[in-house]
Amino acid sequence: MPELRRDLITHRWVIIATERALRPKDFKNENLRPPKGRTCPFCPGHESLTPPEILRYPALPQPWQVRVVPNKFPALRIEGDLEKRPEGIFDRMNGIGAHEVIIECPDHDFALHALTPPQMLAALKVYRTRLADLRGDPRFRYGVLFRNHGEQAGASIAHGHAQLIALPVVPAHAQELLEGAERYWRFHDRNVFEDILRQEIDDGRRLVFDNAHFALVTPYASRFPFEMWIIPKAHGTRFEDVSNEHLAALGEVLTSALSRLHRGLGDPPYNFILHNSPYGQPDVPWYRWHIVIMPTLTKVAGFEWGTGFYINPTSPEESAEFLRSQRT
Amino acid sequence: MPELRRDLITHRWVIIATERALRPKDFKNENLRPPKGRTCPFCPGHESLTPPEILRYPALPQPWQVRVVPNKFPALRIEGDLEKRPEGIFDRMNGIGAHEVIIECPDHDFALHALTPPQMLAALKVYRTRLADLRGDPRFRYGVLFRNHGEQAGASIAHGHAQLIALPVVPAHAQELLEGAERYWRFHDRNVFEDILRQEIDDGRRLVFDNAHFALVTPYASRFPFEMWIIPKAHGTRFEDVSNEHLAALGEVLTSALSRLHRGLGDPPYNFILHNSPYGQPDVPWYRWHIVIMPTLTKVAGFEWGTGFYINPTSPEESAEFLRSQRT
Repeated sequence: MPELRRDLITHRWVIIATERALRPKDFKNENLRPPKGRTCPFCPGHESLTPPEILRYPALPQPWQVRVVPNKFPALRIEGDLEKRPEGIFDRMNGIGAHEVIIECPDHDFALHALTPPQMLAALKVYRTRLADLRGDPRFRYGVLFRNHGEQAGASIAHGHAQLIALPVVPAHAQELLEGAERYWRFHDRNVFEDILRQEIDDGRRLVFDNAHFALVTPYASRFPFEMWIIPKAHGTRFEDVSNEHLAALGEVLTSALSRLHRGLGDPPYNFILHNSPYGQPDVPWYRWHIVIMPTLTKVAGFEWGTGFYINPTSPEESAEFLRSQRT
Repeated sequence: MPELRRDLITHRWVIIATERALRPKDFKNENLRPPKGRTCPFCPGHESLTPPEILRYPALPQPWQVRVVPNKFPALRIEGDLEKRPEGIFDRMNGIGAHEVIIECPDHDFALHALTPPQMLAALKVYRTRLADLRGDPRFRYGVLFRNHGEQAGASIAHGHAQLIALPVVPAHAQELLEGAERYWRFHDRNVFEDILRQEIDDGRRLVFDNAHFALVTPYASRFPFEMWIIPKAHGTRFEDVSNEHLAALGEVLTSALSRLHRGLGDPPYNFILHNSPYGQPDVPWYRWHIVIMPTLTKVAGFEWGTGFYINPTSPEESAEFLRSQRT
């Protein structure tokens, strides 16, 4: 059983994923690449290579366009109780949670930015459905939906996919965002995302693209070159509440963002993360769900992890100008 | 002039280092490696390739054993005023600070773990001298001393060296450690580092090595395989106040930690970071300076940056057992 452990000083939770255990010898000579040439478990016809399907779209007997399966090597276990208890001065609980894989397209070599609008909409609807479903489990406090593109960004299977991890705790950075947004609200009596949107749309230097419902910006204090945020123009804290019309508009902005990256920088590795609201908490006026896209272009690793301090060699204004100039 | 910008939500500061600017074309095809075969600027005889020396040990006319120079491509500028001002709703100041390079040994291929005890002590004394000197500048709030070993861990020059960045702000993670330690103190009326030391020494499963003045442990909620902390047994918040006797003991523990990594895992890339106290704040009973060593063995990149949530595939107990078993 994997274990969740809390750092006594920072209160950051960590999964000790004993079930995926890497033994010391596995780390020698960086021998960490997955075996090549294996049959792709995410391609049509190989469905039996994954654990039993959680969801498919459209339903049988039609061929699937989007498919959701449990992660074969889950970081957390879906069955069981949390059994929170101390270990001396430390805090731990069982590693209970969900770890799902969302395959957005049956084509082995598909790129998310190249999906048609209906395909992108189908994928976003499946994200919404899975996040909403996991909200129903009272053991879970947060659902993290993210996507690693490229080996440098952590992707271990070439066939594109998103991942969803439902956690019995709120991750440190999600908590930090909520508290920061609340602090801004208590100080200014305004929503910080609303204020950022207003300034960035008026100013224009960091605005990459927008449509009726969403804006794509390079954030003022970007940590990484070409970091982008997608911010909804309408208030909303939960991705599960987004309407179909807004999802279609989101698909347009996400496609715009990823196409610009792809064209401008030659298919760079990236991560995107959906910053949603915690499960089981009331709606709050100060927060807003949003998406962060982080290209993995600079080697920053441990120093940044260790200090929370980032050195960005490309200004967000220059990043935005370059991204705006790409044909999409 | 580089710029410091503050994220409006999290209050995290970022350096926009326009002087080291990477243009979009520099990111294509991951063409980021430094040119090979150039003359090493950190080797004896090439002193003129670095900016003018800040400190050398021992003094002229003896050949240097440890040398400190300004970073040739500094993230921050040493001259000037902060000129804090708003930019619309955002906060910025000039990128004023120090960025120094500490070359701990003249040999091009030296490894820190292989230094003799007197060489290691000389290096640690220079760390202490530089941190103390920068504390005297009223513009600075924090000094980050860190070391990147191996290209994967961010080292861009092969000749080993540490770096010291003095900042006009306290980095997010340093602030988080201070606040977490204070929270523990207010709740338990005890120092959290003292409590961790007591439990780890009694328990033994995560203790890798200790001597009279320091303990080397794999932390209970380790984020990374083989992550290690060096915790002083005596109270102290400032590295600048450490006595020569304690520095020698620290050298022994640091050598032990890095030798075990080197032998056990075949010279893996790593970062180490000295978590010191902020400049210009009173001594506090709840904190303690310490060193964190993070091997760069797993590709975790953006997901962890984006969520603050870590999945560690190797338990700290197993890491400690493996590290203990290495001859040093």
